[in-house]
Amino acid sequence: MLIGKIVGTLVATQKDEKLRGLRFMVVKPVDTDGKPGSSYVVAADAVGAGVDEYVLYATGSSARQTVLTDKRPCDAVIMAIVDTWEIDGQEKYRKNA
Amino acid sequence: MLIGKIVGTLVATQKDEKLRGLRFMVVKPVDTDGKPGSSYVVAADAVGAGVDEYVLYATGSSARQTVLTDKRPCDAVIMAIVDTWEIDGQEKYRKNA
Amino acid sequence: MLIGKIVGTLVATQKDEKLRGLRFMVVKPVDTDGKPGSSYVVAADAVGAGVDEYVLYATGSSARQTVLTDKRPCDAVIMAIVDTWEIDGQEKYRKNA
Amino acid sequence: MLIGKIVGTLVATQKDEKLRGLRFMVVKPVDTDGKPGSSYVVAADAVGAGVDEYVLYATGSSARQTVLTDKRPCDAVIMAIVDTWEIDGQEKYRKNA
Amino acid sequence: MLIGKIVGTLVATQKDEKLRGLRFMVVKPVDTDGKPGSSYVVAADAVGAGVDEYVLYATGSSARQTVLTDKRPCDAVIMAIVDTWEIDGQEKYRKNA
Repeated sequence: MLIGKIVGTLVATQKDEKLRGLRFMVVKPVDTDGKPGSSYVVAADAVGAGVDEYVLYATGSSARQTVLTDKRPCDAVIMAIVDTWEIDGQEKYRKNA
Repeated sequence: MLIGKIVGTLVATQKDEKLRGLRFMVVKPVDTDGKPGSSYVVAADAVGAGVDEYVLYATGSSARQTVLTDKRPCDAVIMAIVDTWEIDGQEKYRKNA
Repeated sequence: MLIGKIVGTLVATQKDEKLRGLRFMVVKPVDTDGKPGSSYVVAADAVGAGVDEYVLYATGSSARQTVLTDKRPCDAVIMAIVDTWEIDGQEKYRKNA
Repeated sequence: MLIGKIVGTLVATQKDEKLRGLRFMVVKPVDTDGKPGSSYVVAADAVGAGVDEYVLYATGSSARQTVLTDKRPCDAVIMAIVDTWEIDGQEKYRKNA
Repeated sequence: MLIGKIVGTLVATQKDEKLRGLRFMVVKPVDTDGKPGSSYVVAADAVGAGVDEYVLYATGSSARQTVLTDKRPCDAVIMAIVDTWEIDGQEKYRKNA
């Protein structure tokens, strides 16, 4: 998994029927300091995350293992909202309560 | 998934029998501003998309989860036509009605 | 999938028993103009392709979905011989009849 | 698989239900000399590894093949703690007993 | 698949139970001239290969399709020892008999 920051949303009405009901978020992977780079991925949201939140996302076939994405043509899923992470004993991020 | 722009088409008559009936499109992934780079992928079309359209495509095993691509040797599929996306609250693209 | 040009062949007699009977080709992915780069992949041939031909190849688990590669430890397969492709309405390649 | 060094931990309480009970570690892949680069991955821990340990981790669908990660939306797993590795006959790392 | 040269070995005793009995080799992918780069992968050995040998290895889910690696959390496997390969009609490598 990678840590990502949700930077936007995407809407698509004409789509494969197995995609109905999924919400698509634009997620930028961040480095261990939380800084987003230039790359991005469009991920289905399995946890009710919102723009600007730091999330954990999985890609590939594992993205179909949430209840929401089971057997859907979806290769990236947000499966957790990050509370905090630390590197070398130093807290790098903590979600506001 | 990634956002891509369809830039071309590909025809192949001599192919594995499981590929019969699939349409192949040449898709360039775009950045969050909609600008295509130099890389590309050849994807099967599951939604009736056309050249110059912005689409969402999935790769890997998830590309076999559409009705059209089920159990076929296909590792990239166009599974949605994009209506609009926004980044940091700003609309970056909207499909002409 | 990617478009590739077959540039060579590989022979391996000491191999996992599930690989028996597969032909291995060295394939270089090409750009949309048909120019090969420096990277390559060794792919199983599912369509009777030959050296110098332009082909379509799939990677990952999709490479096991041809009749020939089913349940084999094979992560790249040539599943079509390309007839023609075009980009922005311009024909970039056409196979000699 | 790649060799990685565990550099941190990540906590996420709001997550897909299938992730409950997994511990997430931040792992940096290392080169063959054991030096970590700038990239990282968040991996589930299947072996009770701790920060600063050198581990072996798998990604993609193989990350769901441990007892701990079976059928979970998890695309990276720590599945071994490294004792030692050698390159060109030279020992590059040995875990302290 | 890629052609790789085995450059070392790795030992890990504390590991997921499904990994018992697998031998881990450090493999460097080589270019079409047989020259190894700086990247590497740790692969399970399914064919009894040894250090300095040129091998074919598969990654991802296909790495679990050998008899030896079936249903194990293993994302890279050596599944053949290379006898010879040629590029543009020129032999680039031949294993000593």
